[in-house]
Amino acid sequence: MILVSPRNPLNIGAAARAMSNFGFLDLRLVNAYDVAFREARSAVGASAVMAAAREFPSVAEAAADCSLVVGTASLGHRDPQTPLHRLERGARLMKRHATGSSSGMALLFGSEKFGLSNDDLSHCHWLMRIPTRTQHESMNLGQAVAVCLYELSRDGRAPDHLAKVFHAASGDSLERIAGALSGLLERSGYTNPKTAASTELKTRRMVRRLGLSEKDADMWLGMLRQIRWKLDQDQ
Amino acid sequence: MILVSPRNPLNIGAAARAMSNFGFLDLRLVNAYDVAFREARSAVGASAVMAAAREFPSVAEAAADCSLVVGTASLGHRDPQTPLHRLERGARLMKRHATGSSSGMALLFGSEKFGLSNDDLSHCHWLMRIPTRTQHESMNLGQAVAVCLYELSRDGRAPDHLAKVFHAASGDSLERIAGALSGLLERSGYTNPKTAASTELKTRRMVRRLGLSEKDADMWLGMLRQIRWKLDQDQ
Repeated sequence: MILVSPRNPLNIGAAARAMSNFGFLDLRLVNAYDVAFREARSAVGASAVMAAAREFPSVAEAAADCSLVVGTASLGHRDPQTPLHRLERGARLMKRHATGSSSGMALLFGSEKFGLSNDDLSHCHWLMRIPTRTQHESMNLGQAVAVCLYELSRDGRAPDHLAKVFHAASGDSLERIAGALSGLLERSGYTNPKTAASTELKTRRMVRRLGLSEKDADMWLGMLRQIRWKLDQDQ
Repeated sequence: MILVSPRNPLNIGAAARAMSNFGFLDLRLVNAYDVAFREARSAVGASAVMAAAREFPSVAEAAADCSLVVGTASLGHRDPQTPLHRLERGARLMKRHATGSSSGMALLFGSEKFGLSNDDLSHCHWLMRIPTRTQHESMNLGQAVAVCLYELSRDGRAPDHLAKVFHAASGDSLERIAGALSGLLERSGYTNPKTAASTELKTRRMVRRLGLSEKDADMWLGMLRQIRWKLDQDQ
């Protein structure tokens, strides 16, 4: 990733941190304000990326080993000569390039205040923009970097391997819960004796709608039985 | 969006700016550090969101009008009882909920240092995490907000399928049910007084997992109250 003319050490540090978060470890700086660069080296949670960061005198030199250079721009700051894609599509194009090419890609961000200059833009194969509201387009640099790198690294088809294996409660368990609940409702006068049969049906349906896991079903049954025991004991 | 215990005005301001960028305009703060809140009001590019931001004394009150509360967590800080989805899938679930429900959703972020507490987590229907590297999981708050809101607002492909019209129970209703159930469990001796606080948290989480509709929530509350009345009367 290449930051051109960054001015605020907090932003450089934030960019480095997002890179580290998403596994992009090669940071290059062009025309960085010296003090900002030095201060950013101590940014929280970005030490490895900052330690390896390199400075270059120009975009051409920073991107010399890259076969694809993509700039970031807003609708207002784009160059009419250069294609502008939404981030969703731009990230797809970059991923496709990565699988088809052995040499590197660079993602270029301009300064906080002015974005990329016309000269910077002339080094870009194309541009992409984050789909922000037209009423408030301009993003903070560190946040824009985080969003772009997220989109580049996210995997729409990634398995949700973290979702817990869900063991749905068996029909038996649900029946026991419905029975215990119906009993409690009768015992406590909730059920009108005349409509007891329909209340029981309703209760059973309601219990099924809960979508309980087997483990939760056990707990519900335990709670209902304890309440019932207390009711019978108090009498 | 709800920020719990934010400490750094720069982060509050950055969160507000990302909200404005992506068109999320309702910011709620719980237990914000006063000075941080005041300073954040002058944050660049976030004035409208910050001017409308509201403070609440608790997560329960901040999320009272929300039928879906989603927390953000890392692998390390999750609660094993609450489902944890990757952001890609979590955002899909939230969008689906939005089309099927008339009441609000809340996205919950914890403090910079500690994330969400166990108590905060007990208000969440489920959690999501941004797919960062395991070697460097922890993101800056403002950047995490930007990435989540980008994913929520970006243009996916065709809608998944027609979501059923489902009016999910509000946070208020679920809180009332959890309260009534906890009271019943204490009253009937199910709860061990020494572990009452943890049982209450567990109960609240269990109630959220039920995925109740507003209509079913009303019925559950009525049943629980009737059982309680009977218990108190018999004594």
